[in-house]
Amino acid sequence: MEHPERTRVGIVGAGPAGLLLARHLHMSGIDCVVLESRDREYVERRQRAGILEQGTVEALRAVGAADRLEREGIPHEGIELRFSRRSHRVDFPSLTGGRRVWVYAQTEVVKDLVALQLREGPPLLFDAPVLAVEGPDTKRPLIRYVHAGRERTLTCDWVVGCDGYHGVTRRGLPPGALRTYERTHPYSWFGILADAPPAYDELIYAHSDRGFALASMRSPHVSRLYLQVPNGTDPDAWSDARIWDELDARFATEGDWRLHRGPIIAKAVLPMRSSVTEPMAWGRVFLAGDAAHIVPPTGAKGLNLAAADVVVLARAFDHLKVTGSTDLLDAYSDTCLRRVWRAEHFSFFMTSTLHKAPEQSEFDTRLQLSQLERITASWHAAAELAENYAGLPMGGKGA
Amino acid sequence: MEHPERTRVGIVGAGPAGLLLARHLHMSGIDCVVLESRDREYVERRQRAGILEQGTVEALRAVGAADRLEREGIPHEGIELRFSRRSHRVDFPSLTGGRRVWVYAQTEVVKDLVALQLREGPPLLFDAPVLAVEGPDTKRPLIRYVHAGRERTLTCDWVVGCDGYHGVTRRGLPPGALRTYERTHPYSWFGILADAPPAYDELIYAHSDRGFALASMRSPHVSRLYLQVPNGTDPDAWSDARIWDELDARFATEGDWRLHRGPIIAKAVLPMRSSVTEPMAWGRVFLAGDAAHIVPPTGAKGLNLAAADVVVLARAFDHLKVTGSTDLLDAYSDTCLRRVWRAEHFSFFMTSTLHKAPEQSEFDTRLQLSQLERITASWHAAAELAENYAGLPMGGKGA
Repeated sequence: MEHPERTRVGIVGAGPAGLLLARHLHMSGIDCVVLESRDREYVERRQRAGILEQGTVEALRAVGAADRLEREGIPHEGIELRFSRRSHRVDFPSLTGGRRVWVYAQTEVVKDLVALQLREGPPLLFDAPVLAVEGPDTKRPLIRYVHAGRERTLTCDWVVGCDGYHGVTRRGLPPGALRTYERTHPYSWFGILADAPPAYDELIYAHSDRGFALASMRSPHVSRLYLQVPNGTDPDAWSDARIWDELDARFATEGDWRLHRGPIIAKAVLPMRSSVTEPMAWGRVFLAGDAAHIVPPTGAKGLNLAAADVVVLARAFDHLKVTGSTDLLDAYSDTCLRRVWRAEHFSFFMTSTLHKAPEQSEFDTRLQLSQLERITASWHAAAELAENYAGLPMGGKGA
Repeated sequence: MEHPERTRVGIVGAGPAGLLLARHLHMSGIDCVVLESRDREYVERRQRAGILEQGTVEALRAVGAADRLEREGIPHEGIELRFSRRSHRVDFPSLTGGRRVWVYAQTEVVKDLVALQLREGPPLLFDAPVLAVEGPDTKRPLIRYVHAGRERTLTCDWVVGCDGYHGVTRRGLPPGALRTYERTHPYSWFGILADAPPAYDELIYAHSDRGFALASMRSPHVSRLYLQVPNGTDPDAWSDARIWDELDARFATEGDWRLHRGPIIAKAVLPMRSSVTEPMAWGRVFLAGDAAHIVPPTGAKGLNLAAADVVVLARAFDHLKVTGSTDLLDAYSDTCLRRVWRAEHFSFFMTSTLHKAPEQSEFDTRLQLSQLERITASWHAAAELAENYAGLPMGGKGA
């Protein structure tokens, strides 16, 4: 393995943001390198999101990374809201002028992008933990990293941190340069993966007296299911039978509706956090995806926000290459933050409308139900949900 | 003054709900009596709401009580949202298919209805405090009240409590019959009335770092203005100059915008409460208006909800008279509660989007601003506000 010492754009992190950006730059003839601290197997195995907005699918198509997605991804044209033991469908195409989403696991997106990049470039180094990003406000920021047992340096014109909330890039910027706005939520998601065919065609978002539940899927044979649980819940304290019983109780309708049960092949408790770092750039360092913002998973926005960041950034680097102007790079943070805050608000709206807070009063519950009823009765309320969920046009005014 | 001893419908309270109901019943030839604990001067002087939905105006027209409203009321076709030192107008007719609201003070509505009722009937007794409503679940509920120094009784077929949140009617129902859902808010409104022409054509709802402010009006010469203040604020601790300075600071825009100042002729601090009592009926007793529900004033829904209750109830009594069926009376509570919870939700939405809570984080403020920005950018988000504000059609599906 050769070790590049110089590149135009150094990218820290081989999650979907870093990989997608690298492909876009590569196809525009912009030199870049991706450094990833973990090994390939780890990166390709992480269970994350599973809903792709149309704009994300289009960004993957644009870099030739959508072949398997087109074959195996499952287009969804709506979601089901379940509350007061009744079901109501929100239809995306009729409410949004034809937009839809795709069920295709983030881990599959990563596999597709990794395979493509290892085959066609640009350079992608696994097992290459970054120690520091130095000189963010100089013209030659430098990435110090370790690979194959030796410390190395990569001198860049620009650095993009796609290394997540706990990543080195953000933490390496000068104290006081960035401000982080945060909110934690008083509950977590208990997520399971089960070898069981979904008993439903589309995602079900369930509001119940027992708390929120979500029925999703990874494929026609694998169910992905979530239960709202108190923070600090130990997943191993729940037997499989208890998990299935609780899921059935929360999805219960007037009819005799049941999930298909099957072996639970993975379980984990996920915290719910909202976080935005401003600005999303400092000197010649940019932050993208989870390195800049975290949303609770209720609106399925995390991966899609990361893709949107990267599309904006790729366009800005193209613009620089073609015109010599950094105007779009300078505008990157402001351009992204409108969409980011929109997604934060939508994720908060979905979270607070569907979950049961520990201190929630019966009055609060009635307000939730009134909002849910409104979505079933009002075109505008339904369309507002559908537009936000299916994804605002990238670069559009609505964000 | 004669003292009626028997009536079809006994109405407790001569606020807008009781008076409007009495007129509707009277015009349908249904015998009724209104008992009011206060004197006429007090009732006609109470400062309350000032925004009438189209449906409320139509209900007043239907009983011939809209002549002065048609001459002196000011139709408003939108509101202004002011935040981040910018102004944005929400246009009602274009967003709602032609709906608008009227600025006409509740106290003027009451004067018009009182004058009409004293001239044409039905009987209206001032200074007639109700002591108790007895036998709510019998066929002849009885109202015990005092008038002209003597205790008297009014035997009814039906009783309607329009006597407000602290009224006797609700408190007289059996313990356990009703359930009240409540929420208090951690701030109040400091309202002033000023002899000063409004510096604006439409209401201004202002979000600012200093807290919420609202610019309303009572006439082309009288301004009605509100400031969010901490609970327990003493209005007399604020000089007039301080009030005007604080208002100007909260309404400040990029330009050089100022209120017109003038003598402050009334000031009061109003608590913000949300409350719903369920069911809104028990036996042969019905609750309407504030006796059944309270909304914070931010959405201008209190008076309009009262009018909507009364329209539903008047129709139900008509239906009973014409068909002999109590079906619509039996459905009264369920029919009203959907609209009530919609209004509670909308009032909560407006309140929580525009006010600054004592513990509010900067993250929460950004969510508010993202929601306000969304209203300026999205047709559906703007229309959802406009439909709720201008008023859902009475009896419509959207509630």
